[in-house]
Amino acid sequence: MDTTIDLPEGSAAKALDLSNIRFQLIRLEDTITFHLIERVQFPLNATIYKAGGVRVPYSTLSLFDWFLREQEHLHSLIRRYQSPDEYPFFPDVLQKPILQPINYPRVLHPNEININDKIKDLYIHTILPAACAHSEREERGEKKENFGSSVTCDVPTLQALSRRIHFGKYVAEAKFRSETERFVKLIKAKDVKGLDDAITDTKVENKVLDRLALKAKTYGTDPDIAQIDPGKINDIVIPLTKEVEIAYLLQRLDGTEWDEKEAERVDDKSGPYVAHVGVP
Amino acid sequence: MDTTIDLPEGSAAKALDLSNIRFQLIRLEDTITFHLIERVQFPLNATIYKAGGVRVPYSTLSLFDWFLREQEHLHSLIRRYQSPDEYPFFPDVLQKPILQPINYPRVLHPNEININDKIKDLYIHTILPAACAHSEREERGEKKENFGSSVTCDVPTLQALSRRIHFGKYVAEAKFRSETERFVKLIKAKDVKGLDDAITDTKVENKVLDRLALKAKTYGTDPDIAQIDPGKINDIVIPLTKEVEIAYLLQRLDGTEWDEKEAERVDDKSGPYVAHVGVP
Repeated sequence: MDTTIDLPEGSAAKALDLSNIRFQLIRLEDTITFHLIERVQFPLNATIYKAGGVRVPYSTLSLFDWFLREQEHLHSLIRRYQSPDEYPFFPDVLQKPILQPINYPRVLHPNEININDKIKDLYIHTILPAACAHSEREERGEKKENFGSSVTCDVPTLQALSRRIHFGKYVAEAKFRSETERFVKLIKAKDVKGLDDAITDTKVENKVLDRLALKAKTYGTDPDIAQIDPGKINDIVIPLTKEVEIAYLLQRLDGTEWDEKEAERVDDKSGPYVAHVGVP
Repeated sequence: MDTTIDLPEGSAAKALDLSNIRFQLIRLEDTITFHLIERVQFPLNATIYKAGGVRVPYSTLSLFDWFLREQEHLHSLIRRYQSPDEYPFFPDVLQKPILQPINYPRVLHPNEININDKIKDLYIHTILPAACAHSEREERGEKKENFGSSVTCDVPTLQALSRRIHFGKYVAEAKFRSETERFVKLIKAKDVKGLDDAITDTKVENKVLDRLALKAKTYGTDPDIAQIDPGKINDIVIPLTKEVEIAYLLQRLDGTEWDEKEAERVDDKSGPYVAHVGVP
C-alpha cells in the first residue's frame, strides 16, 4: 500500500504547480519546434526508417532505430533515464550510469506508462512527412549525404516529443490532487469519457494552438525552410498527452486507500490522503 | 602538384556560390541560437568542464570532454566526419563508418586547419558564462540534476559553432577564386594584414550582428530564459572565422602552379589554373 508522497524540499510541490507545468510545456514546444526546423533542412529520406533500408552491420534495425538505440545507450550512462520525466525507446539497452544516482523527490504515483512506440510511429509516419512535405529539398528526393544528419536531428526531436507527451502524467497528478474527490469517483467508475471531460480544457488547448502557430511563423520565416505546421503536430501531441493522462489516472488509485482491493489493509493511523499531499 | 578542382555535378560550384554560403551561415547562426537557448535552461555547472570535477570511471577527462568524445565516436560511425565541413574535437576516437562512403566533390584546397581546441576553450570560458550570466537559474547555483542535460545541449552547440567557424574555408576559397590574382600576390608576400583587409567586409559583418540581435530578441522573449547576447557570441565567431580564412589562404598556394617550390615541376600541358576552375 502506498499513499505517501514525499515533498521534501519544495521541488515536488513545484513539479505539480500548474504554472510551472505550463512553463515546462511551453519550453518543450519551443524545443520541438527548434529541432524540427533543424530536421527539415534535409529531405524526408524515408529509407533510413525502414529496417534493411540502409544496411547496418550486425543489426536488423533501421538506421534510425540503430542510432536512437546507440544514443540511448550513451545517454543512459549520464543518467538520462533516471530523470522521472525521461522515457526510453529501447529500455533493453540502458546501462548503469557512470554518475552518482540522484534522489529525485517522488511526485508521480508509481506507474509504467510508456507510449513511446506509438509516439515514434506517429513521428515517422505522420509528423515528419508533413513537416518535410513543403520543403524545397524534399522535391530533390533522398540525399544519402544527409542520412546521418537526419537521424542526428531526429533523436532530440523525438525525445522532446516523448517528454512533452509523458508530461501529461504531471498534469494529471496536479488535477487529481486539486479535485481528488471528483477524480476518485470517475476512476472508480472507470469512466473514461468522464475523465476525458474532466482533463479537457478547451480554452487552454486553443491557446496552445494559437501560440504554436505564432511561433512557427516567427521561427520559420526563411522561405527555404519548410513551414512547420503546428496544427498537424498538435493534432497528434494533444490526443497523445490526453491518452497518457487518462492511462495514468486509471492506475492512480492502485495501492492507495481508494483501492478497493487494498482498502481492508489500510492502516487507519495513516490519516486522510490530503494530509500527506499539502496542496496549496 | 595539385591544381585540379573537380566540379562534376554543379554541387561544388554551389558550395562556392556566395549566396549559398551566406544562406548556410545564416542557417548555422539559427542552429547556434536554438541550441544555446536550450543550453541556458540549465545553470553554467562549471564543474562538468573541469577534469576530475565529476569522477568519470576509467577516464581523466572532464564529464563534458568525455561525453563529447563518446558522441564523436558514435557520430563517426554514421559518417559525420567524412563530410568536408565537419571537424572532430577528438580525431583519435573516430571509427570507420558503418555506412558506405560518399564521394564528395573536392571543393577546398587540401589543408589540415582545425581550430577546434581554441573554439572549445572560448565556448567553455567565454560564450557559455556570458550566455548563462543573466539566467534566473544561474543564481540558484550548480544543479547536479542538470549535469547530463547540460552536456547533451553543449555538444550540438559546439559542433554548430565549429561548423560555422570552419565554414570560413569556403568563404576564403570563393574569394580566392573571384580575385585570384590579388590573393596570389598577398599570399606570396605572406601579407596577413593585407589578407585581413581583403577578406573583411564591414557591411556584411554589421548585417550579421544586426540579424543576430533581432533573432535572439525574437527567439528569446521568454523572461525566464537568459537573453542570449549575440554581440558576445560574434565578438568570438567573427575573428575566429577570419583566423580560419587567413590560415586557409596562407596554405592555398601549396602544391599549385603558384607555389615557388613546385613551379619548376609544373607540367605545362596542364594549362592555366583558371581553365580548370570555371569561376562564373
